[in-house]
Amino acid sequence: MKIQKHAKKVFTGVIFDVYQWEQEMYDGSTATFERLKRPDTIQIICTEGNKIIIAEEEQPGKPRGNTLIGGRQEQEEEPIICAKRELLEETGMVSDDIELFKTYEPYNKIDWKVHVFIAKNCKKIAEQNLDPGEKITVKKVSFDKFVDIVCTEDFWCKEIKIDILKMRLDGTLDEFKKKIFG
Amino acid sequence: MKIQKHAKKVFTGVIFDVYQWEQEMYDGSTATFERLKRPDTIQIICTEGNKIIIAEEEQPGKPRGNTLIGGRQEQEEEPIICAKRELLEETGMVSDDIELFKTYEPYNKIDWKVHVFIAKNCKKIAEQNLDPGEKITVKKVSFDKFVDIVCTEDFWCKEIKIDILKMRLDGTLDEFKKKIFG
Repeated sequence: MKIQKHAKKVFTGVIFDVYQWEQEMYDGSTATFERLKRPDTIQIICTEGNKIIIAEEEQPGKPRGNTLIGGRQEQEEEPIICAKRELLEETGMVSDDIELFKTYEPYNKIDWKVHVFIAKNCKKIAEQNLDPGEKITVKKVSFDKFVDIVCTEDFWCKEIKIDILKMRLDGTLDEFKKKIFG
Repeated sequence: MKIQKHAKKVFTGVIFDVYQWEQEMYDGSTATFERLKRPDTIQIICTEGNKIIIAEEEQPGKPRGNTLIGGRQEQEEEPIICAKRELLEETGMVSDDIELFKTYEPYNKIDWKVHVFIAKNCKKIAEQNLDPGEKITVKKVSFDKFVDIVCTEDFWCKEIKIDILKMRLDGTLDEFKKKIFG
């Protein structure tokens, strides 16, 4: 939900800021409502030829899992600029055909968006350049393998997982395949 | 992820507490890690005859949507006790056949569990008794209708949605139906 305009910032964190306000309830009483704000997340479905590039990633205290290329948006950074930066850092690749696929808002109590981009025809121009808090193995997989991986328990990106499961049920996966390979 | 034992609680909120600690990174440097802790959530799949009971719910600042019966666990409250309390408050019903179906941990950066229970043969013994911060219309739907509702965009409980979508794909919905109607 939107943090109310008159909300007070009561804590400033490394990732999470906390806001509180007095909310009128249905019986006219009030209660202290609390919501969080965190930087938005960028995720990228990257293609090279007929393959999709994903990350097998490990972070301190987080078990190894498959995920989309991507990361946390820096302050004042535009989503598309962040997508290009994360693509280059995590894979050493660039694309001159990046577009927004969909924006998700995963969690009602956090002011937080996940922007998923499609980056077509990626080309390698540099080495991977990772943060000290991540270990990433870049994997290139077929579309069918990608769909399988997204649907497994240990795939990190839940929002795209729900959409892919629905596409499998609706029979609209082919449309999605055309969209990402163009 | 688990909040580290040596983490410091840096903020105590109405819902969210914030913890921080110095985490060693892969190159030997350290960074401040931040994680949240919030009360666990209880959700209940309730049956009466061959129907499933769900809630059409509205909260201040949250659009009306369908969800499972349930709510936030109180401090020191056992999950099963919370399930019985929420069932009684939101529907006026009791069940003498409640069991845990599955526990989810929705979000890596929050120490937070969602316990989903199955409550069979619910019987109405009282009127609904809601918090001033909720408006709930109890609905009784067939199993097929339940599955349809869970899979719609505006159904609040994402974890059970992923599992139901997978059951539809795997053809294991019948097993699940047997499990909840017993």
